[in-house]
Amino acid sequence: MKSLVCKVKKFIKLNPSQLLVLVFVVSITVGTCVLKLPFSTHEGIKWVDALFISTSAMTVTGLATVDPATTFTTFGQFIIAVLIQVGGLGIMSFAVLIYMMVGKKIGLKERLLMQHALNQTSVGGIIKLVKYLFVFSITIELIAMIFLSIRWVPQFGWTKGLFFSFFHSISAFNNAGFALWSDNLMQYVGDPLVNIVISILFIIGGIGFTVLVDVWKKRKFKKLSLHTKLMIIGTLIINIVAMLFIFCMEYSNPETLGHFTLKDKLWASYFQAVSPRTAGFNTIDIGSMDETTLFFIIILMFIGAGSGSTGGGIKLTTALIIALATISFLRGKNDIVVLKRTINTSFLLKALAISMISIVFVILGILLLNLTERNASFIDIMFEVVSAFGTVGLSAGLTVTLSSVGKQLIIFIMILGKLGPLTLMFSLATPSKEKIRYPEEDILTG
Amino acid sequence: MKSLVCKVKKFIKLNPSQLLVLVFVVSITVGTCVLKLPFSTHEGIKWVDALFISTSAMTVTGLATVDPATTFTTFGQFIIAVLIQVGGLGIMSFAVLIYMMVGKKIGLKERLLMQHALNQTSVGGIIKLVKYLFVFSITIELIAMIFLSIRWVPQFGWTKGLFFSFFHSISAFNNAGFALWSDNLMQYVGDPLVNIVISILFIIGGIGFTVLVDVWKKRKFKKLSLHTKLMIIGTLIINIVAMLFIFCMEYSNPETLGHFTLKDKLWASYFQAVSPRTAGFNTIDIGSMDETTLFFIIILMFIGAGSGSTGGGIKLTTALIIALATISFLRGKNDIVVLKRTINTSFLLKALAISMISIVFVILGILLLNLTERNASFIDIMFEVVSAFGTVGLSAGLTVTLSSVGKQLIIFIMILGKLGPLTLMFSLATPSKEKIRYPEEDILTG
Ligand SMILES: [K+]
Ligand SMILES: [K+]
Repeated sequence: MKSLVCKVKKFIKLNPSQLLVLVFVVSITVGTCVLKLPFSTHEGIKWVDALFISTSAMTVTGLATVDPATTFTTFGQFIIAVLIQVGGLGIMSFAVLIYMMVGKKIGLKERLLMQHALNQTSVGGIIKLVKYLFVFSITIELIAMIFLSIRWVPQFGWTKGLFFSFFHSISAFNNAGFALWSDNLMQYVGDPLVNIVISILFIIGGIGFTVLVDVWKKRKFKKLSLHTKLMIIGTLIINIVAMLFIFCMEYSNPETLGHFTLKDKLWASYFQAVSPRTAGFNTIDIGSMDETTLFFIIILMFIGAGSGSTGGGIKLTTALIIALATISFLRGKNDIVVLKRTINTSFLLKALAISMISIVFVILGILLLNLTERNASFIDIMFEVVSAFGTVGLSAGLTVTLSSVGKQLIIFIMILGKLGPLTLMFSLATPSKEKIRYPEEDILTG
Repeated sequence: MKSLVCKVKKFIKLNPSQLLVLVFVVSITVGTCVLKLPFSTHEGIKWVDALFISTSAMTVTGLATVDPATTFTTFGQFIIAVLIQVGGLGIMSFAVLIYMMVGKKIGLKERLLMQHALNQTSVGGIIKLVKYLFVFSITIELIAMIFLSIRWVPQFGWTKGLFFSFFHSISAFNNAGFALWSDNLMQYVGDPLVNIVISILFIIGGIGFTVLVDVWKKRKFKKLSLHTKLMIIGTLIINIVAMLFIFCMEYSNPETLGHFTLKDKLWASYFQAVSPRTAGFNTIDIGSMDETTLFFIIILMFIGAGSGSTGGGIKLTTALIIALATISFLRGKNDIVVLKRTINTSFLLKALAISMISIVFVILGILLLNLTERNASFIDIMFEVVSAFGTVGLSAGLTVTLSSVGKQLIIFIMILGKLGPLTLMFSLATPSKEKIRYPEEDILTG
């Protein structure tokens, strides 16, 4: 009994980063064991594949070495959905929720954990945010489930139809990208209902909860925080550019958009433009895309979603800050000014650090995977590594052919990409303030 | 007569960037026309190839759509050497030299041009530097020529042997990478004399003249400027890492190092490790290298040589500053401190801007070349674009198969890479000073 108390004390002494890593490792391990159970799969599964799927679900990546549609029983698929919800809606919000449910006060340690996970700069707003977050997320998922069942109950009957709606609603909102068809969502390429519901789910889940709360509270664009404004404008611009790019590049590719009607071409371009940051669903075959398009999608995957969201990548604001700093410098200005606000240099430093560490990890991943997968083409390897690091889950086809060592490497990269390069390396760096010219405002990065 | 005076006045009114671009365009055009002359080639040459070779020589890149060894007469090859010397030792130093020779005083405009080209922050030291630079360069080239003729006069006789020594001395010192054998320097893979002389030439030419002047004046390591120290330490580390990497990766590759003796393996690894930043010579077949090695070399090519050198790339100090900033941030420090010196944030901003613009240009280049070269593999395209942008001149074999549009694209990228992304976009950005904690010192970037 005494030793248990000691252990609990030791556990509580862990700093937020260590706690986060620990919770992740435990969840993935439990997930692996459950997926390995006889009634989780139809014909059994290797340990490495169970570990891969568990990690992929828990990190909401969506890469799969075995076909989730045909390998797993409904029970197994349900477990995957649970892992996705746990990993996506957030271990952290779950932890806080459990504290709330058992009536305990939330201590500073837990709030710091949340702060760290959600990348919130004010400690006070965390608890309120988590309540918002949780109620809002479940509501959205339920509404989406109802909409999806309009399509899938008539097609598959009540049991399967509802389960499919449940699964894909969770998978989409949490930006997991898992689907229960072997070709992902390719059969719904021109289906407006599936396209709209799924994409709205992952866009909402990927824009970051602070943005949602901000929009919910303030309603008017002018009153929004700089972070929210940048996220909205940035998301719009990047999605429109991506849609145009994919539409033009794949227009006459017979293996992707070539044989589609104009309507389906537009739906597919839209969906494949918004999905890489970092939903990971696909309605056309990624592996058949032009290498130019693949390279473009790699860049989108690297940028990723919003801070404090279910998505991954270096985050859109990180990329925006670096772009804005470059533009400021070219104009000969020393301050990074956008929308009449100055961005503190400390945020640029953070953005730079996140990008550099990410680039280094991605490069190392590519070099290593190149060594384990001798027969794979370079662009496929690059695609796979960035997809895992950005917890995107798109694949040009390499995942199912991975060697055992390759699988382990991708597992490691997914965890690295989800926990964030920074979380693994240091705890909280509090930036010191500098002289203010324009009024300053905080920006979330990473 | 009056209109001519007007034109001259207009010419002088150009800012340094515009003047630099103008001189480049004129030189490349003249070079193209001369290479197109009947007695420059054995069997004629297309305009686009003449333009390509002229640009490649003038930008000291070394990529070639036709084989310089068999296509050009000795006259043609001599013209290439002249273009290399003009483009490498520097249009700018040439311009100043011409002013000096005709006895004119050097005006502020010309000094600014030099300052811009050599990336020197003090205007006063420029003229002195150019004198140093010019005498030193010619001396080094002559000494190297004597050493090389020890190998090549016995092999090819006096005329050809001396010409070869002259050509390769110029090509190496200016980091041009042109060689007069169809397989570049592959036949000298294990030859200590050629390996040492050529590599010393391009390392000296690529480390930056300010470093050379600094070492020449101060002799002792402790007294050297921060820039010089960083360049020396950085060059050593990156070369050793690169040599180990290539040695290990290619050790048993039958098409590169596999069949060599250990001695030749080491020489080849050394040479291929130091050459990508940005000499561009090769003693083993680049196209036969492992994709992992190619990717590694792409990174080396992107980083490039030293500021104010004959080489290209984003420059070693630019990469170092970004790495140092990342490390500082991870340690929770707001200042970039190295070797007991603080680096001003304005240099980080400059380094960041240079890197970002370079990345954007390289990505655009890759996307475009992917469109023009439909049958080329992705890594070869990536390699080609980075090689052109970093004015390196190594190729995985794509250059000779380029389409006409692809050739024009690479020509454009070479010019862009040589003139520097910044030179094309803005003139001189003078950073304002901030609070000093540790004593500050200037770092050259770009
Ligand atoms: K995903
Ligand atoms: K070169």
